[in-house]
Amino acid sequence: MELLDKLNWRYAAKAMNGEKVAEDKVERILEAARLAPTSSGLQPFEIFVVKNQDIKEQIKPVAWNQSVITDCSHLLVFAAWDTYTPERINHMFDLTNEIRGFENEGWENYRQMLLGMYPQKDPEENFNHAAKQAYIAFTEALTAAAFEGVDATPLEGFEPDAVDKILGLREKGLRSAVMLPIGYRKEDEDWLVNLVKVRKPMSELVTVID
Amino acid sequence: MELLDKLNWRYAAKAMNGEKVAEDKVERILEAARLAPTSSGLQPFEIFVVKNQDIKEQIKPVAWNQSVITDCSHLLVFAAWDTYTPERINHMFDLTNEIRGFENEGWENYRQMLLGMYPQKDPEENFNHAAKQAYIAFTEALTAAAFEGVDATPLEGFEPDAVDKILGLREKGLRSAVMLPIGYRKEDEDWLVNLVKVRKPMSELVTVID
Repeated sequence: MELLDKLNWRYAAKAMNGEKVAEDKVERILEAARLAPTSSGLQPFEIFVVKNQDIKEQIKPVAWNQSVITDCSHLLVFAAWDTYTPERINHMFDLTNEIRGFENEGWENYRQMLLGMYPQKDPEENFNHAAKQAYIAFTEALTAAAFEGVDATPLEGFEPDAVDKILGLREKGLRSAVMLPIGYRKEDEDWLVNLVKVRKPMSELVTVID
Repeated sequence: MELLDKLNWRYAAKAMNGEKVAEDKVERILEAARLAPTSSGLQPFEIFVVKNQDIKEQIKPVAWNQSVITDCSHLLVFAAWDTYTPERINHMFDLTNEIRGFENEGWENYRQMLLGMYPQKDPEENFNHAAKQAYIAFTEALTAAAFEGVDATPLEGFEPDAVDKILGLREKGLRSAVMLPIGYRKEDEDWLVNLVKVRKPMSELVTVID
């Protein structure tokens, strides 16, 4: 399966060479994130594509000074909703009705169920749920990068509050969840590039219940 | 890009026909999950592959009676570590040293850093972090299913505590995070199969910072 080849090819590049990724490749990587499934189809996140070098320089010190932050081509920041609001839920249901061209009673009942559930929950719990959906999109993006022959470094090692401030996320009702610098590996400075990929054997990971 | 074709093809099947998925396909779907990247490479989850119909019948009522639970071929349950322990962290670092055949000072320092950080944290916070890693593997699995022409239904609508009890997860230091029934769609009973896929336009989802 081609997907397995790509997953074996990819690794978390620890050094990048500054080379730019062509915009059509970036568009397809973002399209994969856009197509990712999410809970109730709410897509409770936004993606910030940082090309600006000054902003990358500001983020670097709050991300353990990892060089890929500044040496990547595009820094993708996945920011999840800080909570679920009626407006956000209604927007997605309205968009669905608009695109499908009809209203459906079951679907409207489902809208009411979500409206009666999410907005009343603790915002922290809602953010955690939204962040998981962002991880689904993030995973499709890093997978798409591999299909494009583009290196991508899954990156959780940063101070979320500081990144939120730099990008002005809180004012938008968003919180940074995970980042994905994309670009091209710099082989001679990357300690990881020539090391064998390590994964647990299937026997440790999977239990079949017959 | 072939990945985009597969993401456009896939949808969350709402009815399945009970047909069995060939075991070689299941193996490749699990292999994609195994190859998924995770934070610090810890792979803090396990996957339970439920083929047993009695167990599926037990899970169905604690999963909103969704028919795909019992009409799927294999029910994949992604269970995340309930917390990070020194044993779990050391196991992965030891496995890495064993597979790569050498010890590295930087890597050992990183081990000590994780040992000094994770086990002291609130288990709930650790579980949430581990669950996000499980979502990455879950995403690769659902993507791999699409490559195999197999339907897969991302499924969060269940009572985690009840599923944990049915599968005996807590005793293993695990908690159910998300499920993925895989199988084949039953078109004449699936209200979603012929509806157009709805996603927000790129302009709502992506902000470029030039």
